[in-house]
This record gives sequence, structure tokens and C-alpha cells, in this order.
Amino acid sequence: MLGKCLENVRANGPLVHNITNYVTVNDVANVLLACGGSPIMSDEPEDVEDITAICGGLNINIGTLNKNSIEGMFKAGKKAIELGHIVLLDPVGAGASKLRTDTAVKLMDEIHFSCIRGNISEIKTLSLGSGTTKGVDADVADTVTEESLDTAIRFVKDFAKKTDAVVAVTGAIDLVSDGERCFVIRNGRPEMGKITGTGCQLSGLATAFLVANSDNRLEAVAAAVCTMGLAGEIGWSNMKNGDGNSTYRNRIIDAIYNMDGETLDKGAKYEIR
Amino acid sequence: MLGKCLENVRANGPLVHNITNYVTVNDVANVLLACGGSPIMSDEPEDVEDITAICGGLNINIGTLNKNSIEGMFKAGKKAIELGHIVLLDPVGAGASKLRTDTAVKLMDEIHFSCIRGNISEIKTLSLGSGTTKGVDADVADTVTEESLDTAIRFVKDFAKKTDAVVAVTGAIDLVSDGERCFVIRNGRPEMGKITGTGCQLSGLATAFLVANSDNRLEAVAAAVCTMGLAGEIGWSNMKNGDGNSTYRNRIIDAIYNMDGETLDKGAKYEIR
Amino acid sequence: MLGKCLENVRANGPLVHNITNYVTVNDVANVLLACGGSPIMSDEPEDVEDITAICGGLNINIGTLNKNSIEGMFKAGKKAIELGHIVLLDPVGAGASKLRTDTAVKLMDEIHFSCIRGNISEIKTLSLGSGTTKGVDADVADTVTEESLDTAIRFVKDFAKKTDAVVAVTGAIDLVSDGERCFVIRNGRPEMGKITGTGCQLSGLATAFLVANSDNRLEAVAAAVCTMGLAGEIGWSNMKNGDGNSTYRNRIIDAIYNMDGETLDKGAKYEIR
Repeated sequence: MLGKCLENVRANGPLVHNITNYVTVNDVANVLLACGGSPIMSDEPEDVEDITAICGGLNINIGTLNKNSIEGMFKAGKKAIELGHIVLLDPVGAGASKLRTDTAVKLMDEIHFSCIRGNISEIKTLSLGSGTTKGVDADVADTVTEESLDTAIRFVKDFAKKTDAVVAVTGAIDLVSDGERCFVIRNGRPEMGKITGTGCQLSGLATAFLVANSDNRLEAVAAAVCTMGLAGEIGWSNMKNGDGNSTYRNRIIDAIYNMDGETLDKGAKYEIR
Repeated sequence: MLGKCLENVRANGPLVHNITNYVTVNDVANVLLACGGSPIMSDEPEDVEDITAICGGLNINIGTLNKNSIEGMFKAGKKAIELGHIVLLDPVGAGASKLRTDTAVKLMDEIHFSCIRGNISEIKTLSLGSGTTKGVDADVADTVTEESLDTAIRFVKDFAKKTDAVVAVTGAIDLVSDGERCFVIRNGRPEMGKITGTGCQLSGLATAFLVANSDNRLEAVAAAVCTMGLAGEIGWSNMKNGDGNSTYRNRIIDAIYNMDGETLDKGAKYEIR
Repeated sequence: MLGKCLENVRANGPLVHNITNYVTVNDVANVLLACGGSPIMSDEPEDVEDITAICGGLNINIGTLNKNSIEGMFKAGKKAIELGHIVLLDPVGAGASKLRTDTAVKLMDEIHFSCIRGNISEIKTLSLGSGTTKGVDADVADTVTEESLDTAIRFVKDFAKKTDAVVAVTGAIDLVSDGERCFVIRNGRPEMGKITGTGCQLSGLATAFLVANSDNRLEAVAAAVCTMGLAGEIGWSNMKNGDGNSTYRNRIIDAIYNMDGETLDKGAKYEIR
């Protein structure tokens, strides 16, 4: 089932507009190409409406936001919604600064996101809806573990219902819910945390998967999450003596480039709750 | 002959000022180093005149333009022209948004470019000179094929004559013309389209080749195009099981790093029309 | 001794705020992860104070400065000082443009840096304290060679005393001084100059090493410099036929990822003068 979602991306070749941070933008572009999509980047307010109009989906990532690009996010988001496009929010660093928290909350107020993807700390900040500054440590909720799983699933389902979005909370265990069902995904490797931008890459992937599977949004995002995690496992199995996090980054993207639907179906590790 | 152009780059070590997009900028810098040049990046209007003054050439790429960097493009371009430097335009996304089309057209009005490099769709947009927004699909002209080759060559020659620039239209078949002669180049691999930024990298290369071969501009750009395409072939031949587009990106830049004039002369596949 | 500094970084996991250029930012992030630290990037004036407050150190790199990010540098720097954090300056291109020179000099006037790291040309520009524009060539002082070593050591010691900072001048021979002692370091490979951003990466590393070894600042920076140079040697020894500067970039970061204190102690090549 999830494999079919990947095959649809390859068949459909979705064009994805990214307003994303300059740290990981190159990897986001290459991951989109690896899965069969096409990336376009544009954050200038005068440019974003035209660009998003020719795309199928919009990926908004606030990782290195500035006043000009924030204006671009609102303009692009509203235009994309007007056109019925997929819009995803990656609230990088929400909770770590007032500007980031406020921007993410305001974006959610004014734009109906198809999907929100972040770590548990960022998503908890958004669920509180408050714009106060919290340090990373003060705000870190318990990570999702086998012990806290039931509570976390309930939280993600509730937040998905409240936002009418597919919500993906990623970490050691990934949760993807549309408010009714929740995919509990156990793909991936801990070493992925030693590469900058695997989360940003996943947000790009999820946008492409949603565009190519817009009638099947929960499965689309779950498939993107499994693709990323499985690529982390395959990439790791291809590591050689002396390889480290920089080579691992390449191997993960390579693994996505080479993945087909059958491989994804065989390698995806999830249960539905 | 083309090999000599590459050797001149290695001997000359041209310093190239790049105002380029933040998606592919790191690869552009590493490609310039790989061919024997040196990169400097600067887009702030208050900084660009000083920076361009110490360089031999300027590479303007509008891939992630914003209002501030657009001002930088005009300032740097005018200063570079005043100093008799090489200036190249890469009109990324011209035709895809009004801002991009207008910016590229206005740049061409105010700055006499030594070279313009883009895909067929971008160059056709510029040749119409209009600032209206066209979606990517609406604006896509036929790609250059064996069937449309004669027409395409005539178009590129005419545009080169009109702009008094070396024009490079790159795709499956690459065309490089100064208005009189046209190099028809058949190097490269289709998989290069699965890497972000091979076009941006080529624009950086072409600028360095022009600076180091300023008396021989048509050959300089043809040599840069062949270098990129041949590196794509050599890089591909070095791919191993499990490698994908991310590793391919590295292998292409590596191939440029290791290329000498003799290899280029042997591997370049072109005819002159 | 230097190995212990690296082990402290891995044990401490310092969070480093980077205001750095968009050319090499991804590599800076991956290098920080490779050594055991964590990177955050933010340059928007309204965002930087909150972000720097949750970090242990701040790395300011003026490589692609613009008016907005310059304001961010001052705001972040003052906040970091107020909080007693480590602050490092990497004056990329000081001497190459009036804006860069003036910005670096003004930053030094208003912020007490813990460390200043650059090439000999940049540091000489800062030591003159003048804001006049000098071309790269006009400003290039003699590189540090065995012949000019005594003079260079005296210069670096004097500049460190004057600025009350650890000063690192990197090149073929690296000098690191706190004004009293000077580490003369002979690690590294000339091919590192064919990769963009090894200097920027080192500035990120040095910030992390300083945060995790704040009572031992001279050794901390010397350890970072030796780590980078030794990684260049190890990475080079892992190069295979056909590899070039792009693969070398990955291998250097990989070598840092795999380095332990014992390897660093064995491989570090320095004398103290």
C-alpha cells in the first residue's frame, strides 16, 4: 500500500515549491529529485505567488526565517490554499524563539495546512498555541518511547483533529495521524540525528507524496516517513570503514533514488493504532 | 583546442564573483575550485562593487533572487562592465514568474552580457523580451532534438547576434553560438537532470573559462559545456551499486577536478555548424 | 592533552549558534554534528537574541553578510557577551571590501571576542584597524613560511594580547596564540584549499571546542585546529582513484566523525613557542 504511494510520486513527478532554510536546502532539492519530484525554491514576496501557482504543493520550513521570507510564507501559503494545493508546515525551532513560535502559530491561524511535521518539542509548542519564548531545554517534552506511546498517540490524534491536518511527529518512533488513525513507525537509525536536515528532507518528501496521493493523505505521509527511515537503514548498511555522517547523508539520498515500491512495502515497519 | 581552454583556466586561476542562488551555491563554489578557479560570493548591494572589482568575471544567477540581491545584481553588473570584466547571465526560472522574467529582461537591457546560459525555455522567454508571467508548461518550447535541430540552431544564432553575447542553450543536446558559428554538443548523461544545480555549476564554469580565454569566447564556453558533460559521463562510469543522485553529484565534481586538457579533447563530442 | 579537549566536546554536546554564510553553512552544520556538538543557524535580528540565549557559543562569519544579517551579528554578539558566552569572529574577506573590513572592525570594537580566526591576510587587515578597501592582492601579506615564522608568531601574539582573544591564523602553517604562548601547528594537506569552506568549518569547530573547554581556551582552539588538519590528512589517505575535491570534503567530515581523543593526541603535530 505504501509502496504504491512512492510509485505514484515517480509516475506523477510533482513540482514542489519550497520556502526553506538555507542550511539544508540543497539536500531537500536532491531528495525531491531522488523520489521522482521536482523542486523549486523561492522566498521573495514578489515572486512566490507566481511560483507556487505552477506547482502542486508548497513546503514551508521556518528554519532560517527572516522578515522578508516570513512575508513570502504568508503570501505563498494563501495563494496555494486559494488554488487548492497541498501545503505543509515544518515549524523548525518553534519553542526556541518568540519569532519562530509566533510565526508558526500565525501561519496556522491564517493557512489551513494539509500536513504539519516536526519533532515532539516543536509540535507541543504549537499545540499550546502560545507565543512565549521557551528555551529548547525548558520546552523539551519527553521523547516518544514505548512507555509514553499511548499518551503520545492520543496527543498526536487530538492535534490532528484540532488542526484538520495530517500530523507527523518524528523521532526514534514516528507517529503519523489524521485524527482517526495513527501510524506508529519504527524505521530509521539513531545515526540519522548526526546529519543536519533529515527532518527538512522528510518535509520535502512528504509534500511530494501528498501531491501525488492527494486522495490518500494519511498513507501518503506515512509512506514518506517510512521511505526516509528505510533509506536511513539501507544507507547505513552501505557504510564502509572510515565513513561518517557526511557520507551517510549521501547514502540516504542515494537509497531514496534507488527505492521502488516493492522495497518500501517489504521494509516499512509500522502498526496502525 | 577545447582542452587548451581548460588548461588556461588551471594556469590562470580566475577569481569569479558569483551572485547566485542559495540552493546550489556550495556546488558552484566547489566546481570553480575543481576547474582551477576561485569563487567569491557576495550579493549585498553595498558589498558587490568592491568584490567584483578584484575579480575577473561575474556570474549572475537569478535562482533565488530577492529585492536586495536584485539591486546587488545591477550594481555588480554595471561595475563589472565598467571594468571590462566578463559577465554571465543564468536566467533561472525566467518564464516561471513575472519577477524573474522582468529582472532578466531588465538586466539584459542595462548590462551587456558576455554570455547567457539557460535551458531552451528560459532563453525563448528572454528572446520574446516580454515581462508577462508564463507557467513552466505554457512556456516550454520543444526541447532540442535531432528533428528540431536546424530550427534551434537558427534561433540560438539569431539570439546571440541580437544580444552580442555567446549564448549557450543546454539540454539533451547543447548549443553554443556567437551568432556566426554554433557548437552542437552531445556530451552528458540524462541522469544529470536528477541532480540539482548542474546548470548553475555550468554557469560558474563558463564564467571561469571565459575569464581565462577572453580572446576566444565561443571556444571557451563550448569547452566549459563539454567539460561539464564529459564529467557527467566519467562520473557515471564511476558509479557503484547502491549509488544514486547524491553520490553522482560528488563524482561529477570529482571528475572535473581530475580532468586535463587531453582528456577533454579526447572526450568532447561536438560538431560546428 | 588536546585529545581531552575533543573528548570534552563529545561529552558536553555544546549547542552553537551560527550566523554564517550560505555558501558553506551545510558543511559547518555537519562538522559541528561530527565533533559532537549541535548547530543552530539564525541571522534575523528579531530572532537571534532568543536563539543565542539557549546556546553555549556564537560563531559569527561575515562571508555573505547583508544589511539585515549584519544587524543580527551585532544583536546576537552583544546578547551572547551579556550572558558570558563564547563568541568567535571569522572575518571572511576582510580587506577585500570596505563593507567587510568596516563590519569586522566595528564588531571588534563593540564585542569582546573569545576567539578570532582567519587567514593571515584577513587578520593583518584587522590589526591595521582601518576601514579602507584593499583588493585581495594589494592586501596579501606574505604567507606564514618557515622563513617568516618568527615574525608571524610575534605578530599573532601581539594581536592576541591587543584583542584579549585567542587568535588563530590558519594556512600552510597554523598559529594559535593567547598572547603568551603560541601553538605552531603543522597538520593538514594543501589539497584542503581546493574545497570551499574548510576555514568556515574550522570556525564552527573552534566555537564548539571553546564552549566545552572554556577554562582552557588556548588548548581548545589548538585542538580544533589540529582536529581539522588531522582530518584532512586522514581523509586524504582514504581517497581512491577518481576521487576529487567533492569526495574529499565528505571524507574530511567523516574523519572528524570517527576521531577520538587518542587519535588526535597521536596525530597532532605542533610545538609551543
